[in-house]
Amino acid sequence: MRNLNNHLHLCSINTATLGHRNIYKMIDAIASHGFGGIAPWVQNLEGQNIKKVSQSIRQAGLRLSGYCRSPYIPASHHTQFKKNIEANKRCIDDALTLGSPNFIFVVGSIPAGSSENIDSVRNQVQEGIAILNDYISDSPIVLGLEPLHPMYAADRACLNTLGQAYAMCQSIDPKGDKVQVVLDTYHCWWDPTLYQQIDMIGKNKRFCAFHICDWLVPTKDFLTDRGMMGDGIIEIAKIRSAIEKSGYEDLIEVEIFSTHWWQQDMNYTLNICANRFQSCC
Amino acid sequence: MRNLNNHLHLCSINTATLGHRNIYKMIDAIASHGFGGIAPWVQNLEGQNIKKVSQSIRQAGLRLSGYCRSPYIPASHHTQFKKNIEANKRCIDDALTLGSPNFIFVVGSIPAGSSENIDSVRNQVQEGIAILNDYISDSPIVLGLEPLHPMYAADRACLNTLGQAYAMCQSIDPKGDKVQVVLDTYHCWWDPTLYQQIDMIGKNKRFCAFHICDWLVPTKDFLTDRGMMGDGIIEIAKIRSAIEKSGYEDLIEVEIFSTHWWQQDMNYTLNICANRFQSCC
Repeated sequence: MRNLNNHLHLCSINTATLGHRNIYKMIDAIASHGFGGIAPWVQNLEGQNIKKVSQSIRQAGLRLSGYCRSPYIPASHHTQFKKNIEANKRCIDDALTLGSPNFIFVVGSIPAGSSENIDSVRNQVQEGIAILNDYISDSPIVLGLEPLHPMYAADRACLNTLGQAYAMCQSIDPKGDKVQVVLDTYHCWWDPTLYQQIDMIGKNKRFCAFHICDWLVPTKDFLTDRGMMGDGIIEIAKIRSAIEKSGYEDLIEVEIFSTHWWQQDMNYTLNICANRFQSCC
Repeated sequence: MRNLNNHLHLCSINTATLGHRNIYKMIDAIASHGFGGIAPWVQNLEGQNIKKVSQSIRQAGLRLSGYCRSPYIPASHHTQFKKNIEANKRCIDDALTLGSPNFIFVVGSIPAGSSENIDSVRNQVQEGIAILNDYISDSPIVLGLEPLHPMYAADRACLNTLGQAYAMCQSIDPKGDKVQVVLDTYHCWWDPTLYQQIDMIGKNKRFCAFHICDWLVPTKDFLTDRGMMGDGIIEIAKIRSAIEKSGYEDLIEVEIFSTHWWQQDMNYTLNICANRFQSCC
């Protein structure tokens, strides 16, 4: 298990942790606090010149831990499904322009008002990821499948466990390493088979990203009440130990969706992230 | 798959669906609407003479589909753990007095402010259920382990999947049938391995109860925004088909925690339950 103390270069900050702010100010702040990486949230890049953002990230000395996140894949009609796939291709192109090693999928689920069900949207996702796997075959990028907590299964992600994500990797890309799995402590901490899954996926070199934050008790909002590391009940260090033991040696990304933290001064939030990364993870 | 149309005798109403009301009025209303069963919620029996309630249920011609729910098992200290086990024994005694075929466990999880973690409380639950299994060895009652949705894993139930509950049954009561599993559509619908789990547990005769309600989109509250059958995205009929195909032939229990439904007239709610049971399940 890696020593994180005085090793802030192992930590990446997902810009969603800082809310809606100017991307260049976020890049500067993240770099000046000594973090080693950044993961731009797609909303923070809206209307920006991706190439210029990419240059700015390099100039600041930051690595990219990922580019989040995909447009949803499932649709009520095939025409819309095809549009969703095209939208994903454009985002993958942006990820390549950014120089991100991966593109992170929050795959979507049952479209509002549709007659789809959990099984049919899971099939759509399987089909969509297979198409996108073909699309990236000659690119230096990985598709990162992020299983989301089951409380999002109806409307945000029908991919809900590490085992399910890994099975999809194996099915679409059995011999390669272009479709991989993202482990986020918030989404997976509760899984009774967590450590078996981590061991299996890690040993098969199928993790492309590791996201951390905490689960607060009580959690007051489904979406925007995620916790700073150390403020909740997730055993982040134990999970990190497991993924690193299984072979993961890349950046550790802090991703916290929280109205509480969005209301704080950006430098204050980054200070706390730095302290907690070194003391609670 | 059983035909539910004009077979309301296959339906049981969990009194939690009707909120905080007089238990005798609830018994009368449930019987007069033609339902076949009732599952008293422990809070609806507070301060009541259990024997008298039991007689009233029989006189109304209702069967019991269960008695919900257990005091939480995990504790910060062993003294409190023992108290929790004793509290469970008293509830099991009440379940026997009621004549319930089972006692339903919502097992609890990490006690507030404690240094316990998800693994340690899972171990406590395993230990506690084993003690209670010894306690009921000569009684005509079954312990029903109900896995709750993972969004409750931190504070309400560290038992979160059918597979996990079944593994606990097998571990504590490998040859017997005194520790069984409860399938609630609300808690398990999202599970990518749902139908394999149902098939395995059902074929081993390990289901003691089947609860139904729906998952609303959006869900506005973690606890009290469960949906009436047909108002959400759960394929209740498909899940019922699977559990019945695996051998389940007991009552189907409607259990809906919902401030919306609690605010309605009790007879209106029961009317809708009856209609939806026959048309959407």
